[in-house]
Amino acid sequence: MSREELANEKETLSAAFAAHKAKGLSLNMTRGKPDNDQINLSMPMLDTLNSSSDCTAEGGVDCRSYGELTGIMDAKKLFGEYMGVAADEIIITGSTSLASMYDSVARAMLTGVLGSEKPWIKEEKVKFLCPVPGYDRHFSICQFFGIEMINIPTSAEGPDMDMIEKLLASDPLIKGMWCVPKYSNPLGITYSDTVMRRLAALKPAAKDFRIFCDNAYTMHEVYRDASLLNPLTACKEAGNPNMLYLFGSTNKITFPGAGIAFIAASRENIAFTTKQLSMQAIGWDKLNMLRHVRFLKNMDGIRAIMQKHAALLRPKFDAVLQKMDAELAGIDAGEWIKPDGGYFITFFAKTGCAKRIISLCKEAGVAMTEAGAPYPYGKDPDDSCIRIAPTFPSLAELCPAMEVFCTAVKLATVEQLLD
Amino acid sequence: MSREELANEKETLSAAFAAHKAKGLSLNMTRGKPDNDQINLSMPMLDTLNSSSDCTAEGGVDCRSYGELTGIMDAKKLFGEYMGVAADEIIITGSTSLASMYDSVARAMLTGVLGSEKPWIKEEKVKFLCPVPGYDRHFSICQFFGIEMINIPTSAEGPDMDMIEKLLASDPLIKGMWCVPKYSNPLGITYSDTVMRRLAALKPAAKDFRIFCDNAYTMHEVYRDASLLNPLTACKEAGNPNMLYLFGSTNKITFPGAGIAFIAASRENIAFTTKQLSMQAIGWDKLNMLRHVRFLKNMDGIRAIMQKHAALLRPKFDAVLQKMDAELAGIDAGEWIKPDGGYFITFFAKTGCAKRIISLCKEAGVAMTEAGAPYPYGKDPDDSCIRIAPTFPSLAELCPAMEVFCTAVKLATVEQLLD
Repeated sequence: MSREELANEKETLSAAFAAHKAKGLSLNMTRGKPDNDQINLSMPMLDTLNSSSDCTAEGGVDCRSYGELTGIMDAKKLFGEYMGVAADEIIITGSTSLASMYDSVARAMLTGVLGSEKPWIKEEKVKFLCPVPGYDRHFSICQFFGIEMINIPTSAEGPDMDMIEKLLASDPLIKGMWCVPKYSNPLGITYSDTVMRRLAALKPAAKDFRIFCDNAYTMHEVYRDASLLNPLTACKEAGNPNMLYLFGSTNKITFPGAGIAFIAASRENIAFTTKQLSMQAIGWDKLNMLRHVRFLKNMDGIRAIMQKHAALLRPKFDAVLQKMDAELAGIDAGEWIKPDGGYFITFFAKTGCAKRIISLCKEAGVAMTEAGAPYPYGKDPDDSCIRIAPTFPSLAELCPAMEVFCTAVKLATVEQLLD
Repeated sequence: MSREELANEKETLSAAFAAHKAKGLSLNMTRGKPDNDQINLSMPMLDTLNSSSDCTAEGGVDCRSYGELTGIMDAKKLFGEYMGVAADEIIITGSTSLASMYDSVARAMLTGVLGSEKPWIKEEKVKFLCPVPGYDRHFSICQFFGIEMINIPTSAEGPDMDMIEKLLASDPLIKGMWCVPKYSNPLGITYSDTVMRRLAALKPAAKDFRIFCDNAYTMHEVYRDASLLNPLTACKEAGNPNMLYLFGSTNKITFPGAGIAFIAASRENIAFTTKQLSMQAIGWDKLNMLRHVRFLKNMDGIRAIMQKHAALLRPKFDAVLQKMDAELAGIDAGEWIKPDGGYFITFFAKTGCAKRIISLCKEAGVAMTEAGAPYPYGKDPDDSCIRIAPTFPSLAELCPAMEVFCTAVKLATVEQLLD
């Protein structure tokens, strides 16, 4: 387009945008959380225990009393299978995997992990590798503890393994790495077998390096049942069984905030971690573990509810993607990856446009996740990445919100070209 | 008694002890946990939520979804009142107060508390005052983090305040102190108003000193409704509102291990802590908070269930105390305090006899809490203190167990006199 054509286009878009603004919308596209229909799928779980229930778990464990620091065997078997590990390779904890992740980093800082020569905090500095875009709450944990974060670019195959291998080989202060290997937050991609094998075979300069692997979306397909090489199996096969902690929860299977969370790892890591956990708890809520086991029953039960979640999510993802295809395809205003699953769609605007797009959306009453949020320190070096969360709003809200979004993308792009 | 009389007495006691051993008992007096009848009191709580329940808390909060980091208002009001603080002076967390205490110390070590100049771990050393005998799990937390513990003797009024004031005034490395101010573990005593006021008025050399006050037995009377000056109120009145964290839970009100826990503190501390907690969780299990509120309803509801607990516990405490009165009173073999409430009775054997007594009990099939457990590093300097936990065994088990115990006390005492 010529400069004059662009100016005309800007005028048209500004008018369209003003019309959107005039509607006085108040829509929220920020929250990666299940909607009410999804939550309702689990209401029968509340019937699994009542005052006449036998609350006994496998081995005669009374779920109403103290004990069983690593969780009830029934839950360890089921969620071990879910995470692809044995029942003695998993610990069932409280209601949130974020707390388990935070706590695992905190323990490593204060006392070190299995094989550490000293607590991480006694090192001159601690660094973590952070595939980007990623989950802001992982990065907040690092920031809270003063851990230096290093951005690792991510493609549809997973993080840049050349870069990771090179950095890790030479820098013993790199003690950890975050990853969301399946339906990743926010890209929705799944690490390829090659990436997973290279991750598992890493030869870090720090002997006590750990991958903090947040498998939050283990079976959270939307469009395609992506297959992930099991991270713990891969590490074992590569001779690195202790290099990985695997986290998960049922917060996006049953009740967000009232699910159960788990840590899976090698038997050696589990033994070490169990001893450390014995300092902070006698055990976690076994009644909630029992509720989950009685409600979900087995892997078929988990598969069945996840298919219902997918059926509820698909029309919402469709609405977002169709709108983007219709309005933004082929006009060089940005790009996106159609996710296989997970909770997000990521839009990459032209460099330098993300903040402006999000600010325009806000003006028109559509709240988007803050620009930069999926990057360490909240800083997107390209000011490009926008995380779209289609799960919580209704379809009736999503369509006008996406109208606003697409207009904002085009307007911001034209503004930049004219600048 | 002459040496010969003692020798005869030893022979008689040895014969009695051999008779006990011959019975092949297998009894456990170690566990400070509610028995089955106590747990059954809360079974109706499991009926408060089912698949047709409205799971909405005050302010329209959906307890089935994410959010409300500090807990639902309904729970903050009720358990605020229970802890004697306002609804905005409390955070409702997960199922275990031990985890909240551990985590509060961990955060202080890694980042400091409100007003810290640096994280505690960056100090040359960190020390805690530990009233003894006390709760072994408090001491384990310190040991885990390498915090040096200083024993503070405790009388029926509370810990030795002269010693505490003197130590704190001069040593800026003393950053914390544990206490169980009501029906304390294991003594069962309650701090006097004078002790509480002196604690609240401390002038520590470390400006970021904190009292970690575990009010685990807030209303856990057995014999007498002891009155405790509210620790937070006392601190406020003394101009030290931020010097105290107050911990509690419902684990010994409803379900041990599946209760809800809370941290109470000044508004400034709560704001500071809430910001820190936002790094590790989006919120804790609000469905379990709602269950508790719907089951216990109000303070009268809590009082009512605590009276039922007391009625179940009293015969067990009676059995232990009556046996001790009958067998051990007036023979200079040790002393004990009749507790007002809580979960334990503490017996102080003659110096140097505790290990032997516990070992004799074990020989005769009666497991007692390990000698030294109620002291930092598991070391009772006098080898005297024995914690008796009468709540979990049945009355039918308690009586023979106490027979063995009293015989063991007498035998060990005579052995020592002859040594």
